[in-house]
Amino acid sequence: MRKRVNQVVLSSILALSVLPINAAVAADAVKTSESAATTVQAPASKNLIVLIGDGMGPAQVSAGRNYLKYEKGIDHLNLDSIYVGQATTYADRGEDGGTIVSGVVTDSASAGTAFATGNKTYNAGISVSNEDASKPYASVVEAAEKKGKATGLVTTARITHATPAVFASHVRNRDNENAIASQYLESGVDVLFGGGSDFFTSKEEKGKRTDKTILGDFEAKGYKIVKDTNALNSLSATTGKALGLFGKSHVNYTPDRTEDIPSLAQMTSKAIDILSQDKNGFVMMIEGGRIDHASHANDFPSTVAEVLDFDAAVKVALDFAKKDGNTSVVITADHETGGLSLARDNIYEMNMDLWDKQKNSSEFIAGKLKAAKTVDEVKAIVAANTWINDLTDEEAQYIMKGDGSSYAQEGAYNAVVSKRMLIGWSGHGHSGVDVGVWAYGPIKELVKGQIDNTQIAKASAQVVGVDLEGTTAELQAKHVYPKFKVTRDNAVLFPAKAVGESLGNKVVWNAQDRTVSLENAGKKLVVSIDTLSVTLDGADAGFKAQVDNGTLYLPLEAFSKLSGKALTWDALSERIVKL
Amino acid sequence: MRKRVNQVVLSSILALSVLPINAAVAADAVKTSESAATTVQAPASKNLIVLIGDGMGPAQVSAGRNYLKYEKGIDHLNLDSIYVGQATTYADRGEDGGTIVSGVVTDSASAGTAFATGNKTYNAGISVSNEDASKPYASVVEAAEKKGKATGLVTTARITHATPAVFASHVRNRDNENAIASQYLESGVDVLFGGGSDFFTSKEEKGKRTDKTILGDFEAKGYKIVKDTNALNSLSATTGKALGLFGKSHVNYTPDRTEDIPSLAQMTSKAIDILSQDKNGFVMMIEGGRIDHASHANDFPSTVAEVLDFDAAVKVALDFAKKDGNTSVVITADHETGGLSLARDNIYEMNMDLWDKQKNSSEFIAGKLKAAKTVDEVKAIVAANTWINDLTDEEAQYIMKGDGSSYAQEGAYNAVVSKRMLIGWSGHGHSGVDVGVWAYGPIKELVKGQIDNTQIAKASAQVVGVDLEGTTAELQAKHVYPKFKVTRDNAVLFPAKAVGESLGNKVVWNAQDRTVSLENAGKKLVVSIDTLSVTLDGADAGFKAQVDNGTLYLPLEAFSKLSGKALTWDALSERIVKL
Repeated sequence: MRKRVNQVVLSSILALSVLPINAAVAADAVKTSESAATTVQAPASKNLIVLIGDGMGPAQVSAGRNYLKYEKGIDHLNLDSIYVGQATTYADRGEDGGTIVSGVVTDSASAGTAFATGNKTYNAGISVSNEDASKPYASVVEAAEKKGKATGLVTTARITHATPAVFASHVRNRDNENAIASQYLESGVDVLFGGGSDFFTSKEEKGKRTDKTILGDFEAKGYKIVKDTNALNSLSATTGKALGLFGKSHVNYTPDRTEDIPSLAQMTSKAIDILSQDKNGFVMMIEGGRIDHASHANDFPSTVAEVLDFDAAVKVALDFAKKDGNTSVVITADHETGGLSLARDNIYEMNMDLWDKQKNSSEFIAGKLKAAKTVDEVKAIVAANTWINDLTDEEAQYIMKGDGSSYAQEGAYNAVVSKRMLIGWSGHGHSGVDVGVWAYGPIKELVKGQIDNTQIAKASAQVVGVDLEGTTAELQAKHVYPKFKVTRDNAVLFPAKAVGESLGNKVVWNAQDRTVSLENAGKKLVVSIDTLSVTLDGADAGFKAQVDNGTLYLPLEAFSKLSGKALTWDALSERIVKL
Repeated sequence: MRKRVNQVVLSSILALSVLPINAAVAADAVKTSESAATTVQAPASKNLIVLIGDGMGPAQVSAGRNYLKYEKGIDHLNLDSIYVGQATTYADRGEDGGTIVSGVVTDSASAGTAFATGNKTYNAGISVSNEDASKPYASVVEAAEKKGKATGLVTTARITHATPAVFASHVRNRDNENAIASQYLESGVDVLFGGGSDFFTSKEEKGKRTDKTILGDFEAKGYKIVKDTNALNSLSATTGKALGLFGKSHVNYTPDRTEDIPSLAQMTSKAIDILSQDKNGFVMMIEGGRIDHASHANDFPSTVAEVLDFDAAVKVALDFAKKDGNTSVVITADHETGGLSLARDNIYEMNMDLWDKQKNSSEFIAGKLKAAKTVDEVKAIVAANTWINDLTDEEAQYIMKGDGSSYAQEGAYNAVVSKRMLIGWSGHGHSGVDVGVWAYGPIKELVKGQIDNTQIAKASAQVVGVDLEGTTAELQAKHVYPKFKVTRDNAVLFPAKAVGESLGNKVVWNAQDRTVSLENAGKKLVVSIDTLSVTLDGADAGFKAQVDNGTLYLPLEAFSKLSGKALTWDALSERIVKL
C-alpha cells in the first residue's frame, strides 16, 4: 500500500516539472542541467509540518516585517525566505452553526476544513460537509495516523479551537469544544499542546464539561499531562504521548505571558523533539492562534507580537526541516482578521516606534476599562498601559461608552490607540483577501503560485503519501453529523429526507395520498403528513413523525428499523453512529 | 557589449538554479532531469513588458477575482496563472515635494522609481535620489533606448502621471507634468498612449502649459498623434512613433467610457503591434492607472472595473509573450490604495451581486452631488446611479455634508455605497501592505518569492541585458536636480553645500572666521556668513550669498566659476545642466 501511494505522489509531483537543483551550478546551461541531474532527490517527504497563522492576512505579515525592519534592524521575517504564493479562502455559503453569519468570507472552521481535508464547507463546520446530514472529511493528520505516523497539534489558542479541531475531530458546530476534546482522546494524536483545559475538566472542578473530567482518560492512554513551561521542558523526547494545557482558555498573549507560559516556539520545539522519534515519520500542525484574536479586538501591538511569536515557531520548524532533510513545511493563514490597514486617514506613514509601547494586551486591561467610572480613571488606565499621557476627554469618554461592538470599552480603547499608530480596521470580523503561502521542501512545488486553500490539504497528503480519500471513506462508514431537534420531552428527532438519503434510503414524496416513503433493502416506511402516523412494511411502526417548519422529522428508531442495524446517537458529538 | 551583458544575465539567472523544464516529463526522476537537459533555453529575453496596477493591493486583486467567480462564473483572473511572489514597497522618508506627506508608505513616484530604476527615493520624486541636490537614476526604458530597443509607455492615467513618468523623465516633484511631457520629447520613447493632453497644450488652447503647445514638436520628430479609438485603430504597425492622448486629464473610468475612448487592452494591443516591429526588441510599461484613483475616492465598483480593465491588458501582453517566445512579462503594483477591506462590520459576507450595479463612477456624478441642495435631490441622484432606492434621510444628509475629506460629497456617497456592499476603507490614502508580483518567461526566476520592489528593475535590466548603471552615469554627468529658491527679484539660488558637493566641490565651514569655503580644482570661493560677501580666489566674486532658514544659498554663477564650466538652469525641469 505504502509503495503504491508513494508512486502516485512521485509522478504527480514530477508532472509539475520540479527538480531540486544544486544552487551552486556553473554558468553554462547544459553543464548546469547535467549537474542538476545528479542531485535529483525523491520528491516525497517523510515528515510534514503545517503552520497556520490564524487571521494572518497580508497586512499582518507586512506589519511584522516592518516592525522588525524599522525597530529591530532585522530585514525580514523567517517566513520571508520561503514565500511561494497565495491562496483563496472563500467558504461555502450555508449552515451557520447558529452563531456565525456564514457568507463567503470564511471563519477558521471552514478554512481549516479546506486546508486540513481538501474540502470546502460552511462557517462553523469542523471537517464535515455542508449538508443537512453532514459527512465527515478526513484530515491529513487522520490519514497520517492511519498510516502509522506520529501526529501532533500545537497552538496558542485553546487546543479545542477550530484550527486544531479540524485536523482531528468532526462536529457540526465549532462551539462544541467538549466533543472535540473527547474526540481527541480517540484520535490517536500523540502530542496536543495549547490552551483550553476547561474543556477537559468538569464544572465541579471549575471547567466547562457537564459529564466529567477526562484528563484521567488521557493518562490512561499513556499521555503525560503538563501545564507549565517547566513541566513542558522536562518532558523527555521519548515520552510518546503528551497533552499540554497552558491555560483554562487560550494561552496568554505574548505581552501578558509569565515564565510559566511557554511561547509557541517552545511548544513547537518540544513537540518536534517528541514526534521526530517515530521511525515512520510525523505530521503536525502548529497554529499561531492569537494573531486572530488580537486582530478581532483591533489590538494592533498584540497582533504584531503574535505574528512575531508565530514567526519564531516558523524558525524552529524550518531549522528542523533543513537539518532533517526529509521534512516538508507548508505555512498559510486561514483568513485575514479585522480588515487591517497599515496607514490611514490619508497620511503616508506608519508610526512603527509606537508599535511596542503598549505594555499588556487590550484583553488584559479590558476588565479595568469596563469598570472605570470617570474620565480620569480611563486616562490613568490608558497612561499606565501605553505611551499616551495626553488622552483627551473626548477619547476617554468614547472609551467609557464603548465602540458599539461586543468589544465595548476594549474596542474603543483599541480604536483610540490604533488611530494614534495610524492603523486602520474595518471592523471586528474577518475579511476576504487572499492569504500568503510559504513552503519548504518538496511540498513547495505543489502549493506555489495562486492556489485555493484546499490545495494545501491535497499537497500535504501527496507529499507524505497518505490517503485522504480512503481515510474519509472509513470515517463516513462510521458517522453521520445531522441537523436534529430535541422535543419538549427530550426525544431527539432527525430530518427524514436528509438523514434518510444519507443512510442510503430512497425517499419519495407521494402528493396523491400525502405520504412520504423511505425504502431500503426491501423495507418500506410510510409517513402520513396529515396524521404523522408511520407504518413499516404496512404495519404500525410504533412511533410518530413530527413536522416542524416544513421539515419532516423521524426518530433514530425509524432509520435503525429500515437499515436493520442498531444505529445509536452520540449526544456529545451530535452524530449518528452507524457501526 | 551586448554579448558580454548577456553572459552576465545568463550566469545570474542560472545561479538561481532555474531551468525551463518540459512539463510532460516521465514519472522517473533521473529520466526526467535528462529530458529537462535537452529543453534548456537561453534565459534572456529580447522583449520585456512591465505591467503596473496602480493602487492594486492584495484586496483589490481578490475583489476582481471574486467578482469574476461569483458574478461571471470565471474562476480566475488572467493574472492568477503567473503569480510568483510579493514585494515590499516602502519609500525613503524625506523630501515631500511640498504636497505629499512622505513617510515610509510610498506614493506612485517613489514606488515607480524603485521598480523602474532599482533605487528608493522620497515620495513625489520622479527617478531622482533622495538628496537636497538629487541625482537622476536611469530606468530600464532609458537603458533599453540606449541599447537601440523600441520603447513604449501606456496608461489609463495621464501619460505625464508618476508611474509612466519614472520610466522616461526626471523631476524633483511629480506635479511638474509640463516638464515630464517635454522630457518625453527628448526621451526617444516610441509609443506614448494615455491621457493628459493638457500637459502638451498651451493655456491659450485650453491646456495647462505656460510656454507653448508641444504637439507640433512631437510631430516634427515623427510621432503620429491620435486622440480617439478610431485613430488608434487606424495606426499602422509600421508607424514607428506614436503619441496617443485620450483625454485632457486621465482616461475616463471604464464605466464612463464612450466608444471613442480605448480600453487599456486596446492601447496595449496597438502598442505591442508597433513596438514588436523593432528587430532589436522592445521594452514597454503598461499601467492600469485608475485602480488607484477609484480606490482613493473609495469608489469600489470602479475599482473592480479598473482591475478587470487592467487584467484584460495582462491577457494581451501574455498572449503576445506566449506566441512570441522571446518576451518576459513582469507585473506588480506600486502600493495599495484606500486600505480596502473585503467585508466589514463583523459580517462574514461580500455582496458581490451589488458590485456592478453602479452605472457611472462616483467621479462622474461628483459634480451633481456637490450641487444637490435637498435630501430628495441626493436621493434621486443616488437612485439614478445605483440600485439604492431606499436611501435614508440620514444617509442623504451625510452625503450633502461630505465625508470631511477633499472628496467631500463624492467621498460620502462612496462611504454609503461601500457600507451597503460590505466594503471597508481606512481613508483616502495609500497603505503599506506588500503587493503581488506576477511574471512570465525568464524574468520569473528573478522576481519570485518575497522581494523588494527595487528587484523588479534589477531583474528587468538583467533579463533584457541592458545597462542601468551605465545609463545612470550618463544622466548624472548631465543633470543635477537641486532644491532651490527664487528671490523676490526672480533670481534662482541654490543650497551651497548640497549643490557644491554634488558638483564635486569641497565644502568647508570655518567656525573661527565664520566663513564657508568651496574648493574645486585649485579654485576657492569663500562666503562670509555675516556679511554674505563672496570672494573667488581672494577677489570679490561679483555676487552675494543669501542665508534662509539656516541654509546658505548661492547663485548658479558661483558653481560655474568654480568649475570653469558654463552651467545652465533648465527652469522647466528645474535642473542644473552640466554639459
